[in-house]
Amino acid sequence: MTENAERLPRLNVPALDEILGKPFKVLDDGFVRVIDYMGTDESVVQAARVSYGRGTKKTSEDRGLIRYLLRHRHTTPFEMCEIKLHIRVPMDCWRQWIRHRTANVNEYSTRYSIAVDATQRTPAGAWRKQAPGNKQGSEGYVDETVGRGLSLKEEELQNTSRAVYHERLDAGVSREQARKDLPLSTFTEAYWKIDLHNLLRFLSLRMDERAQQEIRDYAGTIGREIVSRWCPIVWEAFLDYQLETLTLSRLEIEIVGALGRGDSEKARSLVEEFGWLRSDDKGLKANRERAELEEKLERLDLPIPWRK
Amino acid sequence: MTENAERLPRLNVPALDEILGKPFKVLDDGFVRVIDYMGTDESVVQAARVSYGRGTKKTSEDRGLIRYLLRHRHTTPFEMCEIKLHIRVPMDCWRQWIRHRTANVNEYSTRYSIAVDATQRTPAGAWRKQAPGNKQGSEGYVDETVGRGLSLKEEELQNTSRAVYHERLDAGVSREQARKDLPLSTFTEAYWKIDLHNLLRFLSLRMDERAQQEIRDYAGTIGREIVSRWCPIVWEAFLDYQLETLTLSRLEIEIVGALGRGDSEKARSLVEEFGWLRSDDKGLKANRERAELEEKLERLDLPIPWRK
Amino acid sequence: MTENAERLPRLNVPALDEILGKPFKVLDDGFVRVIDYMGTDESVVQAARVSYGRGTKKTSEDRGLIRYLLRHRHTTPFEMCEIKLHIRVPMDCWRQWIRHRTANVNEYSTRYSIAVDATQRTPAGAWRKQAPGNKQGSEGYVDETVGRGLSLKEEELQNTSRAVYHERLDAGVSREQARKDLPLSTFTEAYWKIDLHNLLRFLSLRMDERAQQEIRDYAGTIGREIVSRWCPIVWEAFLDYQLETLTLSRLEIEIVGALGRGDSEKARSLVEEFGWLRSDDKGLKANRERAELEEKLERLDLPIPWRK
Amino acid sequence: MTENAERLPRLNVPALDEILGKPFKVLDDGFVRVIDYMGTDESVVQAARVSYGRGTKKTSEDRGLIRYLLRHRHTTPFEMCEIKLHIRVPMDCWRQWIRHRTANVNEYSTRYSIAVDATQRTPAGAWRKQAPGNKQGSEGYVDETVGRGLSLKEEELQNTSRAVYHERLDAGVSREQARKDLPLSTFTEAYWKIDLHNLLRFLSLRMDERAQQEIRDYAGTIGREIVSRWCPIVWEAFLDYQLETLTLSRLEIEIVGALGRGDSEKARSLVEEFGWLRSDDKGLKANRERAELEEKLERLDLPIPWRK
Repeated sequence: MTENAERLPRLNVPALDEILGKPFKVLDDGFVRVIDYMGTDESVVQAARVSYGRGTKKTSEDRGLIRYLLRHRHTTPFEMCEIKLHIRVPMDCWRQWIRHRTANVNEYSTRYSIAVDATQRTPAGAWRKQAPGNKQGSEGYVDETVGRGLSLKEEELQNTSRAVYHERLDAGVSREQARKDLPLSTFTEAYWKIDLHNLLRFLSLRMDERAQQEIRDYAGTIGREIVSRWCPIVWEAFLDYQLETLTLSRLEIEIVGALGRGDSEKARSLVEEFGWLRSDDKGLKANRERAELEEKLERLDLPIPWRK
Repeated sequence: MTENAERLPRLNVPALDEILGKPFKVLDDGFVRVIDYMGTDESVVQAARVSYGRGTKKTSEDRGLIRYLLRHRHTTPFEMCEIKLHIRVPMDCWRQWIRHRTANVNEYSTRYSIAVDATQRTPAGAWRKQAPGNKQGSEGYVDETVGRGLSLKEEELQNTSRAVYHERLDAGVSREQARKDLPLSTFTEAYWKIDLHNLLRFLSLRMDERAQQEIRDYAGTIGREIVSRWCPIVWEAFLDYQLETLTLSRLEIEIVGALGRGDSEKARSLVEEFGWLRSDDKGLKANRERAELEEKLERLDLPIPWRK
Repeated sequence: MTENAERLPRLNVPALDEILGKPFKVLDDGFVRVIDYMGTDESVVQAARVSYGRGTKKTSEDRGLIRYLLRHRHTTPFEMCEIKLHIRVPMDCWRQWIRHRTANVNEYSTRYSIAVDATQRTPAGAWRKQAPGNKQGSEGYVDETVGRGLSLKEEELQNTSRAVYHERLDAGVSREQARKDLPLSTFTEAYWKIDLHNLLRFLSLRMDERAQQEIRDYAGTIGREIVSRWCPIVWEAFLDYQLETLTLSRLEIEIVGALGRGDSEKARSLVEEFGWLRSDDKGLKANRERAELEEKLERLDLPIPWRK
Repeated sequence: MTENAERLPRLNVPALDEILGKPFKVLDDGFVRVIDYMGTDESVVQAARVSYGRGTKKTSEDRGLIRYLLRHRHTTPFEMCEIKLHIRVPMDCWRQWIRHRTANVNEYSTRYSIAVDATQRTPAGAWRKQAPGNKQGSEGYVDETVGRGLSLKEEELQNTSRAVYHERLDAGVSREQARKDLPLSTFTEAYWKIDLHNLLRFLSLRMDERAQQEIRDYAGTIGREIVSRWCPIVWEAFLDYQLETLTLSRLEIEIVGALGRGDSEKARSLVEEFGWLRSDDKGLKANRERAELEEKLERLDLPIPWRK
């Protein structure tokens, strides 16, 4: 490795350079924009090849190697790329975001400065209903007539909160204390710097359909607008091998195996044995593991023997 | 080390066992309580002695070793102790707390459950004024007559916010969205688990006078009520060698050295040379580094030659 | 949550208490033993229920909740358990171990003390051959007659290295420098403390068949002897949902789907389209993704249409 | 902040660009070279100003702000800069290096490739003697005549080890096992990526006189050759406020205070009270805390009243 000790040029990505500083709008008043970055698809390869040493330079081609690394959880080469974003996001959403600990953060300080004068507003048609099945999700929308009332009340509350905030400041109250009743919908801003491996992990959790809509909007924008430009080969591999995969548990492998060799009787009896197929006088009882399995079997176009 | 392969008893601390589960009240409706812990003063010693090997068991005594380790930044033995707290804290304060990344956290989920029905209230006499010198601090109190008005308005705003929240829930809005305008003063709860080294770092930053009063209250309680019982020798060493220390910069060492040998002329000229002693027609100009130096000289009972 | 403010007993696990301090032998002269721990299966549940709030206490049963959490990557509740091990391991193996960064470590210091007087020996029949397919693996054993020669040379080299080490110490050379030519097979000792989530991640990587045999021996011992006693429900869920799972990529889902509905022609043409089924005049060319797919199809008892 | 949404140029540092890829030699066959970086002195300021908001742009000048941040432990803005180094270092030294966990690492794999064919050699005059006072340090050199013998033996041992390694490979032994008796002096290579805050922490520990000479050589090179070019203002502040500072403990402040007001009697009696001034029939007993205090008093040109 030492032989190529000549001066190195800094790697850059023209497609990303082109959007440096450009805000991608998210929600009504939020955004994400790239401030700086380090590394490219090529850096992942370069790092993997330090591990593999000299002899391998010709044998693998870059795309194949990147896909292999991602598929087999060789995560360290992806840590060699780093990106710094400037984001504007409601505090409520930021509370979820900040839980990703392996990142560097500088947030706008409302101890030091007056809080950002913007709150996330919800249009009449955008009030999501509580999901019946999933205790932490939403599904469908509240009727717009009702929604209109909620949106009006929201505006009123946000205006009152802001007025109270300024009243305190005007009375000489310290910023660090005046802010205490700002609504969670208040926007904040931050520099957020993270390596590519941990960013992909963030995306895989936050682009997921179980993530809350607001943070999904941010994650989707970061993935589709930014990562896809920055490291297109990694992005493609991520979609193929991480985001859109399907995992079968030890028990599910047995069941699918039975279905694979056409033995639906065995498949059914395994499901029973695992306790996923209990009935009472009203018929089959709901069972979460069976529901998850059925969803997978549907995706794989395999039969579901216990359904008529 | 291998010879003492006999069965080990689990180390415990009777003084801490006695308060396990007991909430220490903080702010009007918050608390901190210990759920579980691992290790004691003795574990720090034990860990250090793995590093040092067998031969040293008799030579140092425990207290001296702990003090030596803390003084000389040998941080890893302190990571061998772990504590798990259950805390109840306003979200505003939690926003600062969560920035300490090297900890394990499970927070009460307002996606999953109805938000805790409590907000931090500010009594009429407790509205702190903005500090004039320190842009991110507070100093003194707003006049109580004014404060009374602010407290009334606070109560009203918090009540309205709660009513709006319940109105949304009643209209079928999902919990994850209904919460978006809760005030930052809303209490949340969390399990927070951290090792002793990182806890001491948290305390050294958050017991500091520049920390915001609310989080200082929590940090002080954790330190004085909990750490002092859990690892009393470490706690004492922490106060002596970390919390209540005074650090002189490279430049300050030179100045104190001049004062040490009685050469105030030299001390004064150094201060000038560093650019900390500039005047204009209104007299000496404010200078932050000079102010910090003067504070240190006062603590050390040394003269300040540029003052009359 | 605050109501049960009565004194808490510290959770403990009798099955683990019984083996506290007991060394489990690994390799010829290594071991792993538990020094201390915090938390149990129940702590995982308890932590998840802080997230979920009060209302859910009766609805789910513990085992189901733990299995749900593990299956759906809710990792934070598993971070609430912590374990501290004392290990004795060759430095070569330790070099891999230490790469797991989210752990606390105190290693025996050969700057401070004389190096542990033991090296890992390889018996004549235990020299593993280089794997032909996998550049970083081994497969099968070198002929024992040859192995005998290698083992003799190993013993000689290790003895010489030790003699040189002592010669340096006898000449007054500092320990920190005298150690510089110790062989990587030299044993070291460490206290290693880690939370259950990160320990499971360690196990999932190091119990894997692609991990090097030596560290697999340690990981297997930690899993089967220690975690299985400490948190038996988590351990079972880990085997079912993490260690022994099978993941299908986006592309593989399409292929299995075609096979699922009996369309082998489509399955075959997809494999071709993905570029995994290229031939030259010697027949089908080796292709790593196809090989991985075939392995999965075999596990699922599904047909492989491009094979005769 | 949002207004300056125009395209951003990527920040770069010409003085660092000039040495990109250039190896700085360390030890006999090691090196450190910069592969890539992100951010500059200006990025620290930029990040701090996200925290401080818009209003402050004119008031502070950059140098003063950076110095303020470093002095007052505002560490997060320094995390906004990142650097990636390629290093070549003996495994013995790497064992210490890798203990800094907050970094990204890709190391040359001797499972995958043949080990680097180089070991660190010690010249006859470079064998350091064990320090008498400090159990983990060295002091002075072994007589060169003796050293010559040690160096010869070293060469012989390293050659034998290498021969044994190749003999194993020639016999078909897997690389992962053949390497097990390589000496710790064998060079390895790695990509090491770290943010500026954690790099400064690495430097403050490893440029310290108590660090082992070998890693001090690397740390010194990284600091003086690389960081000084990359972020010259941060580097200067680091020297002034972190590396070359002096910290007085709570007890020492009292003593210096007494000396400050000329009360040597009080100073002496405090030292006695703290138990640092015990005598036996041979005179004053050695005491580590007193020795540390005396060293500080000497640096501050203050009198030591208990010395004649």
